[in-house]
Amino acid sequence: MHRYLSRRGLPVPAGLGLALGVAITGTLASAPAFAQDATEAAVEAVAATGVSPESAFIFNTLLFLMAGFLVMFMAAGFAMLEAGMVRKKSVATQCLKNVALFAIAGILYYLIGYNLMYDGVDGGWMGTLSIWSPDDSAIDGGDFGAGYAASSDWFFQMVFVATAASIVSGTVAERVKIWPFLAFVVILTGILYPITGSWQWGGGWLAEMGFSDFAGSTLVHSVGGWAALAGAFLLGARRGRYGRDGSVTPMPASSLPLATLGTFILWLGWFGFNGGSQLAMGSGADAVAVARIFINTNMAAAAGVVAAMVVCQLIYKKIDLTLVLNGAIGGLVSITAEPLAPSLAASLLIGGVGGVLVVLAVPLLDKLKIDDVVGAIPAHLVCGIWGTLIVPFSNADTSYGTQLTGIVAIGIFTFIASFIVWSILKATVGIRVHEEDEERGVDQAELGMEAYPEFGPSAV
Amino acid sequence: MHRYLSRRGLPVPAGLGLALGVAITGTLASAPAFAQDATEAAVEAVAATGVSPESAFIFNTLLFLMAGFLVMFMAAGFAMLEAGMVRKKSVATQCLKNVALFAIAGILYYLIGYNLMYDGVDGGWMGTLSIWSPDDSAIDGGDFGAGYAASSDWFFQMVFVATAASIVSGTVAERVKIWPFLAFVVILTGILYPITGSWQWGGGWLAEMGFSDFAGSTLVHSVGGWAALAGAFLLGARRGRYGRDGSVTPMPASSLPLATLGTFILWLGWFGFNGGSQLAMGSGADAVAVARIFINTNMAAAAGVVAAMVVCQLIYKKIDLTLVLNGAIGGLVSITAEPLAPSLAASLLIGGVGGVLVVLAVPLLDKLKIDDVVGAIPAHLVCGIWGTLIVPFSNADTSYGTQLTGIVAIGIFTFIASFIVWSILKATVGIRVHEEDEERGVDQAELGMEAYPEFGPSAV
Amino acid sequence: MHRYLSRRGLPVPAGLGLALGVAITGTLASAPAFAQDATEAAVEAVAATGVSPESAFIFNTLLFLMAGFLVMFMAAGFAMLEAGMVRKKSVATQCLKNVALFAIAGILYYLIGYNLMYDGVDGGWMGTLSIWSPDDSAIDGGDFGAGYAASSDWFFQMVFVATAASIVSGTVAERVKIWPFLAFVVILTGILYPITGSWQWGGGWLAEMGFSDFAGSTLVHSVGGWAALAGAFLLGARRGRYGRDGSVTPMPASSLPLATLGTFILWLGWFGFNGGSQLAMGSGADAVAVARIFINTNMAAAAGVVAAMVVCQLIYKKIDLTLVLNGAIGGLVSITAEPLAPSLAASLLIGGVGGVLVVLAVPLLDKLKIDDVVGAIPAHLVCGIWGTLIVPFSNADTSYGTQLTGIVAIGIFTFIASFIVWSILKATVGIRVHEEDEERGVDQAELGMEAYPEFGPSAV
Repeated sequence: MHRYLSRRGLPVPAGLGLALGVAITGTLASAPAFAQDATEAAVEAVAATGVSPESAFIFNTLLFLMAGFLVMFMAAGFAMLEAGMVRKKSVATQCLKNVALFAIAGILYYLIGYNLMYDGVDGGWMGTLSIWSPDDSAIDGGDFGAGYAASSDWFFQMVFVATAASIVSGTVAERVKIWPFLAFVVILTGILYPITGSWQWGGGWLAEMGFSDFAGSTLVHSVGGWAALAGAFLLGARRGRYGRDGSVTPMPASSLPLATLGTFILWLGWFGFNGGSQLAMGSGADAVAVARIFINTNMAAAAGVVAAMVVCQLIYKKIDLTLVLNGAIGGLVSITAEPLAPSLAASLLIGGVGGVLVVLAVPLLDKLKIDDVVGAIPAHLVCGIWGTLIVPFSNADTSYGTQLTGIVAIGIFTFIASFIVWSILKATVGIRVHEEDEERGVDQAELGMEAYPEFGPSAV
Repeated sequence: MHRYLSRRGLPVPAGLGLALGVAITGTLASAPAFAQDATEAAVEAVAATGVSPESAFIFNTLLFLMAGFLVMFMAAGFAMLEAGMVRKKSVATQCLKNVALFAIAGILYYLIGYNLMYDGVDGGWMGTLSIWSPDDSAIDGGDFGAGYAASSDWFFQMVFVATAASIVSGTVAERVKIWPFLAFVVILTGILYPITGSWQWGGGWLAEMGFSDFAGSTLVHSVGGWAALAGAFLLGARRGRYGRDGSVTPMPASSLPLATLGTFILWLGWFGFNGGSQLAMGSGADAVAVARIFINTNMAAAAGVVAAMVVCQLIYKKIDLTLVLNGAIGGLVSITAEPLAPSLAASLLIGGVGGVLVVLAVPLLDKLKIDDVVGAIPAHLVCGIWGTLIVPFSNADTSYGTQLTGIVAIGIFTFIASFIVWSILKATVGIRVHEEDEERGVDQAELGMEAYPEFGPSAV
Repeated sequence: MHRYLSRRGLPVPAGLGLALGVAITGTLASAPAFAQDATEAAVEAVAATGVSPESAFIFNTLLFLMAGFLVMFMAAGFAMLEAGMVRKKSVATQCLKNVALFAIAGILYYLIGYNLMYDGVDGGWMGTLSIWSPDDSAIDGGDFGAGYAASSDWFFQMVFVATAASIVSGTVAERVKIWPFLAFVVILTGILYPITGSWQWGGGWLAEMGFSDFAGSTLVHSVGGWAALAGAFLLGARRGRYGRDGSVTPMPASSLPLATLGTFILWLGWFGFNGGSQLAMGSGADAVAVARIFINTNMAAAAGVVAAMVVCQLIYKKIDLTLVLNGAIGGLVSITAEPLAPSLAASLLIGGVGGVLVVLAVPLLDKLKIDDVVGAIPAHLVCGIWGTLIVPFSNADTSYGTQLTGIVAIGIFTFIASFIVWSILKATVGIRVHEEDEERGVDQAELGMEAYPEFGPSAV
């Protein structure tokens, strides 16, 4: 069950805090058979062992569970962010999609995804198509060598898959049909994400090459972004969004407090996202690493906020709250590829650039007439690329060339595969609601209900 | 302080990770007095002990606190779910009731409930009427045999009581008077819930008989559901809800994003609800158990969502978001009676059936003219019964007969006792607002304020 | 790195659970050189050590991280509370201010605040103006004497600074200009808060004198309250709030469910705020302490709710939800100065008085024509004073005189310094929006956007 540790390209389960315990046991076993020595050995063992294998097992499992529930809550964050960012007439559908995609991601990752990503990849391109089930039988024999409960690892990774799906949901809002969207989620979480995931975290060819993506700027956020981009391209923009004269009709967010709440929940969840990706808390060194990741993550988000505010003010003479919220997310995505190695100052820089990129990328997408309703592509794709590219700046074990290779390879695969899946859906069941249905809103058309039935009619 | 462990019908504090340490200590104490042996013993002790009693004490306490704050947050989840599900004119009252009931539950469980539930039940029907106070004096003498801080246990259980009260709040919304409702909460959290709780988790007659309810499908969710049912019956439906011709007037939820947020918060909190009910994290085996509970809990919720969606689509040709949200809750309630033993596939099945039951039970209640504003009875009562009944499917130590006995006994007691309490309140202070007050809304009538004063008039 | 422990006036790092490990090591090292003894020593060591230095290090770090992310989430709580309490036309600005202040607090505390608060204070008045960076190099040599990861400590304290800034944000809502407000946040979080913080938690003169403020009733909440009071005074009331005849025009909260959600999030976060302030979880005694803090904190909040409800009902014959929400916060602030020592009964009393104070202080402020939009001054300043004053009631190591000294000293410094900073801002860039901008709302004027653009016009 150590395969998950290859996530950081480590061939052995380093960082688990087990080595120390094993080493001491070894030393003691060969200790001279004298009482004095025995006493000293005992003393040394007790004083130095630090963390027994079983305690480390509990700590590591606890990290996965705690980080996992924080990341799970990001599903609520995305739901609120997106519900706040779309127009009133699409809010209920957006809520439904976010609940449904989280459910589907969990089921598909169990049925297909996890084993496809981790089971016997070993330098290759993907694992096996088999149903995963937890195996913790070793600990019944007192063997804690696995380092953590298999279920806790699965839980932590499952919530990552769901994150990738959440990213897509926002971009294609307000005009995508529900069931075809959910069909795409099935493919994304069951097959596409696990394949590119296997290349790196499954110990596949990218991991062998030395690519580095600590918590998934590319593997999670860019993957979501590419899939969203393909969808947005094939769906087309919302009716009336772009005029023939190049004008852009603003379609303001229906509830900025919900969008703000969503962003704060994402920020909170990101401590689990990045912190949990240390994959271990069973040694002092790992605890220090998790703590460093927390403060770097927070600093990058803070810098993303401030940078977005300042750039907004300079360009538009006003602060745009939605850009600031996306600036926070952009900062968070940017630090996700390497939240451990940078200093706080470097994290500030990395996150700050992320915030600037978001502000600059949003109008660029509009120029390209790609209608990304919640700004997910700037925040998750653009900053995902930025964050992955800049890893060698703080992590000497990586190279810009390899990072670029990973970004491009995963980008090409995910975009093309997503394009094909969306295209098939478009050609068969259709992916876009009828024109008049879009006009009155997907909530009415697809669900037959309104998100806010007592708050007056929606703007068209 | 071990009484809480009888919660799972265990006569001894198994699962606390203490046994191993004690066993090793025993073995070592009788080890031959030779240096070689001593060395080996030391080695073995350090390598094998795994978790010292004090470390286990901390882990267990931490589990209670962490799981406890997650369950505490479920109070916010219920508040948002209910505030989103009622009409605009009742939202503020719903918020108030949820804050107030959480406060009252904490105070009453301290003054009466906890000791009534746990103090000297021993196979009987209830404990003592005395005020609880934490006793952790043993650890001052270095004795960590209690396994966890008394306060942490109380915290964890107190938030469970509050959950039961939250369930009632939603059903009786939009027409109940605030103070009589809170009076009912006083009785429910101080007396009714603790009595049935003592039968099982207090080590009473149901526990002795072999009834099994891991985290409270029956003890918490059904109890809340029965109390709600009695209230809904005595209150009557909202004005205009049911026509004489059998028609049902839809009274749509005022804010679906808030209802969605509430559901996500409940889903998050449920990891604490079920995971914390393992009651221990001080051994590798317990950590594995908590992790398994997390993934089973998530799988059941996911299955509840998907099942509700599919059944909705089949029956109504449209997906109803509120039914899907209740499907998630139904899945969660269903797995709560036994979240540890089932495989992921079984959890999928158990939760999925829960989701279907919710979709089927909602119109059934309407046929019976029982006006359950938020759908709490289908999700908590119906699925609570289902989840408790199905325990023997995955847990061989239980029997369908005993499960049924527990369900029926607790159901009869809670429904009748609640019926009596509601009846007394109805006959004395009255439980329903005046007709014209209901018309203009309980917020105006009871609080003299509006939840959304600047968002136009409410629908009647 | 032990300076933080002076937070509770301890000259040595007591409470870290390290002492025991060291003591046992010492005992064993001098054990007679006989095999029997060695065996027994090994047995004893394994059985008794409880928690190794490295395990304690992990537990302590984990407490800081877990409590820290809970407190971080309070930023969302304040954002929702304030977004719900202001009028519709000011909601977006309130959201922006809360996101921005959290970002700024983190950056400033890194650049200036932390070292000013902790670096070499030693009985003095403040530390050094230097940039902080984490130093955990000791553990590379296997020395876990620091007790916790430096980064985790910084994280925990950083979120406290942000809390103080959040308090100010609510009071000055609906009329303050964004950039000058953020400039004030820079000074508050970079300089003012760290200076008074250094007096106590930095081991400065107040700590030496014996002042006691466990988690910051005064150091965090009153500081925020004083800064808010100075701002409200210099800003003046909202247009139309107070008539010349002494009348007060109600300006109702725009969304009570958001305010309720915010309160629940704050309640949740407070377990981290107070529980984490134990600063250690690496011993059984510390775990017990954290658990006690949890239940006392909850009890005080519950009492604040019930007391506010009852007093409201008695005075106004109706319950005011916003006062009840502030009653919860008032209860929480009241117990924050000493959440460990009181019994549950005492916590009930302390929190209950807090709830009463809130209900009484709100109209008093209106009489003084101090327009505190969200009621932050009653809840945070008044209850902060109350909570700090009442510490000697349950903690015999403190005196009313010293407590008063601390309250007054910090109050005078913070109020005057804040007054000066606000005055400079007023005299230079101005702190209040133009009259017509306030009329149409700060959202339109400052951000050029609306929080709820599709929900009809705002009330003026």
